[in-house]
Amino acid sequence: MKIQIINGPNLNLLGKREPKIYGNTSFDEYLKILHELFDDSIIEYFQSNIEGEIINKIQEIGNKYDGIIINAGGYTHTSVAIADALAAAECKAIEVHISNIANREEYRHTSLLTPKCAGSIIGFGLDGYRLAIEAFRVINKSNLH
Amino acid sequence: MKIQIINGPNLNLLGKREPKIYGNTSFDEYLKILHELFDDSIIEYFQSNIEGEIINKIQEIGNKYDGIIINAGGYTHTSVAIADALAAAECKAIEVHISNIANREEYRHTSLLTPKCAGSIIGFGLDGYRLAIEAFRVINKSNLH
Amino acid sequence: MKIQIINGPNLNLLGKREPKIYGNTSFDEYLKILHELFDDSIIEYFQSNIEGEIINKIQEIGNKYDGIIINAGGYTHTSVAIADALAAAECKAIEVHISNIANREEYRHTSLLTPKCAGSIIGFGLDGYRLAIEAFRVINKSNLH
Amino acid sequence: MKIQIINGPNLNLLGKREPKIYGNTSFDEYLKILHELFDDSIIEYFQSNIEGEIINKIQEIGNKYDGIIINAGGYTHTSVAIADALAAAECKAIEVHISNIANREEYRHTSLLTPKCAGSIIGFGLDGYRLAIEAFRVINKSNLH
Amino acid sequence: MKIQIINGPNLNLLGKREPKIYGNTSFDEYLKILHELFDDSIIEYFQSNIEGEIINKIQEIGNKYDGIIINAGGYTHTSVAIADALAAAECKAIEVHISNIANREEYRHTSLLTPKCAGSIIGFGLDGYRLAIEAFRVINKSNLH
Amino acid sequence: MKIQIINGPNLNLLGKREPKIYGNTSFDEYLKILHELFDDSIIEYFQSNIEGEIINKIQEIGNKYDGIIINAGGYTHTSVAIADALAAAECKAIEVHISNIANREEYRHTSLLTPKCAGSIIGFGLDGYRLAIEAFRVINKSNLH
Amino acid sequence: MKIQIINGPNLNLLGKREPKIYGNTSFDEYLKILHELFDDSIIEYFQSNIEGEIINKIQEIGNKYDGIIINAGGYTHTSVAIADALAAAECKAIEVHISNIANREEYRHTSLLTPKCAGSIIGFGLDGYRLAIEAFRVINKSNLH
Amino acid sequence: MKIQIINGPNLNLLGKREPKIYGNTSFDEYLKILHELFDDSIIEYFQSNIEGEIINKIQEIGNKYDGIIINAGGYTHTSVAIADALAAAECKAIEVHISNIANREEYRHTSLLTPKCAGSIIGFGLDGYRLAIEAFRVINKSNLH
Amino acid sequence: MKIQIINGPNLNLLGKREPKIYGNTSFDEYLKILHELFDDSIIEYFQSNIEGEIINKIQEIGNKYDGIIINAGGYTHTSVAIADALAAAECKAIEVHISNIANREEYRHTSLLTPKCAGSIIGFGLDGYRLAIEAFRVINKSNLH
Amino acid sequence: MKIQIINGPNLNLLGKREPKIYGNTSFDEYLKILHELFDDSIIEYFQSNIEGEIINKIQEIGNKYDGIIINAGGYTHTSVAIADALAAAECKAIEVHISNIANREEYRHTSLLTPKCAGSIIGFGLDGYRLAIEAFRVINKSNLH
Amino acid sequence: MKIQIINGPNLNLLGKREPKIYGNTSFDEYLKILHELFDDSIIEYFQSNIEGEIINKIQEIGNKYDGIIINAGGYTHTSVAIADALAAAECKAIEVHISNIANREEYRHTSLLTPKCAGSIIGFGLDGYRLAIEAFRVINKSNLH
Amino acid sequence: MKIQIINGPNLNLLGKREPKIYGNTSFDEYLKILHELFDDSIIEYFQSNIEGEIINKIQEIGNKYDGIIINAGGYTHTSVAIADALAAAECKAIEVHISNIANREEYRHTSLLTPKCAGSIIGFGLDGYRLAIEAFRVINKSNLH
Repeated sequence: MKIQIINGPNLNLLGKREPKIYGNTSFDEYLKILHELFDDSIIEYFQSNIEGEIINKIQEIGNKYDGIIINAGGYTHTSVAIADALAAAECKAIEVHISNIANREEYRHTSLLTPKCAGSIIGFGLDGYRLAIEAFRVINKSNLH
Repeated sequence: MKIQIINGPNLNLLGKREPKIYGNTSFDEYLKILHELFDDSIIEYFQSNIEGEIINKIQEIGNKYDGIIINAGGYTHTSVAIADALAAAECKAIEVHISNIANREEYRHTSLLTPKCAGSIIGFGLDGYRLAIEAFRVINKSNLH
Repeated sequence: MKIQIINGPNLNLLGKREPKIYGNTSFDEYLKILHELFDDSIIEYFQSNIEGEIINKIQEIGNKYDGIIINAGGYTHTSVAIADALAAAECKAIEVHISNIANREEYRHTSLLTPKCAGSIIGFGLDGYRLAIEAFRVINKSNLH
Repeated sequence: MKIQIINGPNLNLLGKREPKIYGNTSFDEYLKILHELFDDSIIEYFQSNIEGEIINKIQEIGNKYDGIIINAGGYTHTSVAIADALAAAECKAIEVHISNIANREEYRHTSLLTPKCAGSIIGFGLDGYRLAIEAFRVINKSNLH
Repeated sequence: MKIQIINGPNLNLLGKREPKIYGNTSFDEYLKILHELFDDSIIEYFQSNIEGEIINKIQEIGNKYDGIIINAGGYTHTSVAIADALAAAECKAIEVHISNIANREEYRHTSLLTPKCAGSIIGFGLDGYRLAIEAFRVINKSNLH
Repeated sequence: MKIQIINGPNLNLLGKREPKIYGNTSFDEYLKILHELFDDSIIEYFQSNIEGEIINKIQEIGNKYDGIIINAGGYTHTSVAIADALAAAECKAIEVHISNIANREEYRHTSLLTPKCAGSIIGFGLDGYRLAIEAFRVINKSNLH
Repeated sequence: MKIQIINGPNLNLLGKREPKIYGNTSFDEYLKILHELFDDSIIEYFQSNIEGEIINKIQEIGNKYDGIIINAGGYTHTSVAIADALAAAECKAIEVHISNIANREEYRHTSLLTPKCAGSIIGFGLDGYRLAIEAFRVINKSNLH
Repeated sequence: MKIQIINGPNLNLLGKREPKIYGNTSFDEYLKILHELFDDSIIEYFQSNIEGEIINKIQEIGNKYDGIIINAGGYTHTSVAIADALAAAECKAIEVHISNIANREEYRHTSLLTPKCAGSIIGFGLDGYRLAIEAFRVINKSNLH
Repeated sequence: MKIQIINGPNLNLLGKREPKIYGNTSFDEYLKILHELFDDSIIEYFQSNIEGEIINKIQEIGNKYDGIIINAGGYTHTSVAIADALAAAECKAIEVHISNIANREEYRHTSLLTPKCAGSIIGFGLDGYRLAIEAFRVINKSNLH
Repeated sequence: MKIQIINGPNLNLLGKREPKIYGNTSFDEYLKILHELFDDSIIEYFQSNIEGEIINKIQEIGNKYDGIIINAGGYTHTSVAIADALAAAECKAIEVHISNIANREEYRHTSLLTPKCAGSIIGFGLDGYRLAIEAFRVINKSNLH
Repeated sequence: MKIQIINGPNLNLLGKREPKIYGNTSFDEYLKILHELFDDSIIEYFQSNIEGEIINKIQEIGNKYDGIIINAGGYTHTSVAIADALAAAECKAIEVHISNIANREEYRHTSLLTPKCAGSIIGFGLDGYRLAIEAFRVINKSNLH
Repeated sequence: MKIQIINGPNLNLLGKREPKIYGNTSFDEYLKILHELFDDSIIEYFQSNIEGEIINKIQEIGNKYDGIIINAGGYTHTSVAIADALAAAECKAIEVHISNIANREEYRHTSLLTPKCAGSIIGFGLDGYRLAIEAFRVINKSNLH
């Protein structure tokens, strides 16, 4: 299985700042854990603070991957353009949020991306990315959904 | 690990009706799969169409379980009382929805329960329950969240 | 023809209280009139103040009846769960309201059940139940709708 | 009994267009059925696409009729002026809608006319007009309402 | 001074119906009083239930009159088209309402016509028309406004 | 006839500032004109920038006057307390606004005082006060309202 | 005097959980204090997590009690059906809330029950129940309200 | 190609009034230009201030024309009934607005007609009608849309 | 115990006007009853129609009193400034309303003061002040809140 | 005439994906048709997924072009910054949308760009770009707008 | 330069209460610092809890001062009347807030005064007053604004 | 003191366009003035039209600067992602706006960045940047805030 993880703005700071909300692990450290856990899969990682670069990356994926895991950070709540890119993508996407966004500012409660994704995994810290890969294993095998 | 699954109204019909939205598997069949997958864990199941019985069940759990997996069906969007019960519960809860509720009627987009749960898993069909158990494994081991 | 009438909370008080709004006839008295009018049909009656029991009843009906006549009282405006049960029902439902709810409190103007019913009959007092049975006679014969 | 049916804009097209929503019967054909069913009653029919002509017709009725059956089409949702005419009418009115307007566009969910009518009959196709005449029989005999 | 009074839908019923709100005097009787009070002025009267005829009348007035007194009845709250006609009129208009619309249904609280009129006179019964003529006397003499 | 005019905040500046909106005449100059026009009536004048003093004045009036003419300036849109005082007043009140408030800022479109007044006269400059006195003449003689 | 106290969902947990909000006393302990304080009165207690059972209890009371004290917990904000039951009750009701709900989540700020009760007592901890009994003493003696 | 242009209320005043918004050309003058530009086509013109007459005209068109160009003026923002007529029309419609309605009053920003038209052309003055005819040339030739 | 009662605008009219809402007792008469009932306490009374004077009074109280009982009348719903004064007060405040404000105009349903008070007592007529004093007795003795 | 076409995010996918909405032609193919149709004009094309690059491009244009044709895709509905750039541009802009956005998701119904453009052309597929060039021909010759 | 500082309700408590929000310095102490810093300017200070007195003060200023610095406290968010007074003032005003009101209660986020002031300085504690004086130095010298 | 100024989209056009709103000075010219005024400080300047580059710049600053002065232009009102970056920044930020945004389009009235900044300075033209540097001098010395 080949998965592309796409992280949006400020998620390059993971592990460095606001550890109460986002934990102490950097995404690079966590990525190693993922690679070990799923050593039969290819898991690639992309991060950008620039909305349009995230769109470029989604477009590039084409049919070369089995799934996209996307945490668009602050763009989650404002980007019609990323939502459009996901809608046009050839593989399914799963939305991940590290914190429980329903407990934060009002404007974080609505995601423009959820309707364009297969599903969402919210509030489990970095472990949400592992769960998303787990989910793809079943999505690509079954018709439960 | 000891987990209580609580399903709300109409989820006893799973597998029988509206298979386009909810799939063809009944929850009892699916429960067997869960019991096989997690044979080292105790996974108990409760379903009720009555809001107050769901609250009673949440209250009974006390500290006898490691986690609650709740899919409150239609009460998700209207029940302040179930939200209060979850807020008062001694163990953490994870919210599961079988379908991607962000793609359904407007009144299904907001959950009163999410702010009282550790996290949510939405849109992965019955596999969402498996992912929730997976998530509890890490929640009870780590401090990532 | 076999019809199940389901009345929701406080409708057991019909004829006893607030006669200006609901009239002086109890539902039991009225039921006798219905049985006489439609002596070729089976008309069964169920009332409960408990939301989940109404859902249970809707689920029990299965394909054993030709139609449900539902007046969910105060749950009309708040119960996503009853709406879900109606959506999953195997026979059609007709919504009846005794008073003209458009002339009462703002929160009574919207019914969550209407979109899940074949149609609604509102404001004709108890006679609305007779009209609903009349309607089912045509619904089950024709394709006008 | 003497009844005036008033149909609003575009209802002259019944039977010709959008049969999925409105059926295949023209109102003239249906009117014949009504005349046969209620051969002891006078049932008159008026249709206009012009809002003010509908108001003129309501005003003309005075105390010469036992009831008005009104389906104001698109004016249902926008015409304070027709609502005012109904409020000033000397006989009661019943509102009919052929389709279940709660399942159509958001702007069709609210009727300005309902609070000025005795009741509404919604979603039963052309049969709604028959039910309205049935309802007038009881309205003019009883005090249930 | 030459004044055109324009009354909208249902105002032809004045004096006949709903006397609690609109009084017992018909507009024709009241018009005689106005003609006596202002015997040095020409006061013409037009009433229609048809929105477009009201627009036609406003357009006809051109520069032949010193002022329009308009009570558009139910169209007050819904007619962008009459508001447009008033905005394009060559003489000023004054809006009159017989009842205090701020004490009636919510949807009567907003007038689309007020911003296109010189001013409004609300709640003084038929006497509002006299006050409007009084007002035109000053409007056409001074620059106070 | 004995009338109390009450002007609210900033109306002491009339004639000095913002002449485009409020004209060039001070209220004292205008009051002289009113006294001459209605030399058979007692017309008293009170102005205050302090909300509570306006309430005090309304309470003092008791049954000593035939009417209150109130232009509460900026308090029109915010003062529940002045509205309460008017509701408790023993004589009727008429609301006057110099400019057409429907053409100004959004927050000037709603008056909390209108529902507690007999009527409103809006947009006729200072002449609105004269019209209000004219209106009281009829209010106290007739039952048109 | 005979009073029925009705507590809604999760209030059976009083004294056990969330003591910061709800205090350390269980309702049973507090009930003893009430019985001592008002030893000339009959004070009965009912608690249920089930909305419909609360309605059943309100209906049973009939004219056998002098008053109902109701704290409907989470149903306060969502239950049209309990509000309907209170409106139909033969004795007056007083609403009690232990915490100051105006300082908690937005959705707790509005009570559907208040308009159907004689009054509300909010924010005084368990002492609110004593105050409600005190209030009933005067309600049943005087006409101040 | 055979095109019916339908103009709504106040558009008969084009060229005479408010030239800053609508230009100095009357529609009749402009129609001559259109006839010259498209001398191989039949372009007919209808204007009415009466909402229902516009509906009548749309219904008459049937399949005798290749397209409708509609500028419904003030009815654009309020007429569900014209929208219904366009939805039922046998040929496609294009909506034209002379001015850029997004820069005018808030209530002009939403068109009820757009969802029932093939497309809209807004803000190009009278030239919008020419562009609409241009557009019909392609619509009736291709499948780009 | 030393208590300061503060009444806001129009409450000086108690007993004189609108007895249906506010009863027939003047506050001075009622104050005598309070003094007799609580002869071991000092109960002082202040009334003003002026918002700022109420703020002045709240500021003066400092730590010289055990509690404030405030009924801010019409300022309850609009005064951020009184709310700020209560938030800064050194002793606790209890909000009293004579009538059940949830049954009156929409704009009376929200109190800006409640979140700054210990609690509210609403709808018990003048008896609400007695209940508030009763409440202070417990507030100053216990930790139930 | 020299025109700059600017396409926003995901419009580089034209012809490849979602052909039901956007057609089968790629923009490059369509551009050739435009070049042939308007061989006396210079038509340049720019596409970017990055909001700021679109702003950069608008700023570069200065007075070197006669017009901008902009289809900002998903940024249409969210970008105050692109709207600001258009407001500051030295040449006029025309907004084009390929599909009829009034028939798509609610959040696509409002364009922040329209008020900063001369006009909009919506729903004509790729042909909208041709119509926009046609429109510029007249805009730059006349004063109709 | 001659500056009038006007502070609204509760700002006389500065330094005494809620030091976490407002700091420990009283305004009198701070005023001394300002007088030292700007010893070439006249800086006068006025504080009142009474809305109308603030209006009185603004009116008195006339052209005797070079600027007003206003912190209207709780009236900031509710006083149309103070906003009107500022709009009519002969010298410019600058709005100061000690705390960052965007981080406090929702009802503090909107200021009615900002649109009537030259600018606002928010969140810099008492130093905001110094910055406002600094700002007046430039405002009165340049045309940058 | 070391300060980073960050300007957002279209602010590179300062001095060139829309001088009525933004003045005639380019930011480079103004920067020279700032460098002279604060020759003991390091003031660096960054401008980008690209949202993500502004986020990159905020992240780079780390603890190398004493403060950020940010004018995010159009992104002020839409960018959750820049707000997140400011929340995670190690030094404080001050928000500057050149014009008084409370007097411009509705969508410019709310800033998503204000709650993440120490304070805001709005409406003083380019002089706002000088005032922000003045403010940082005190912020870094005191505890007033």
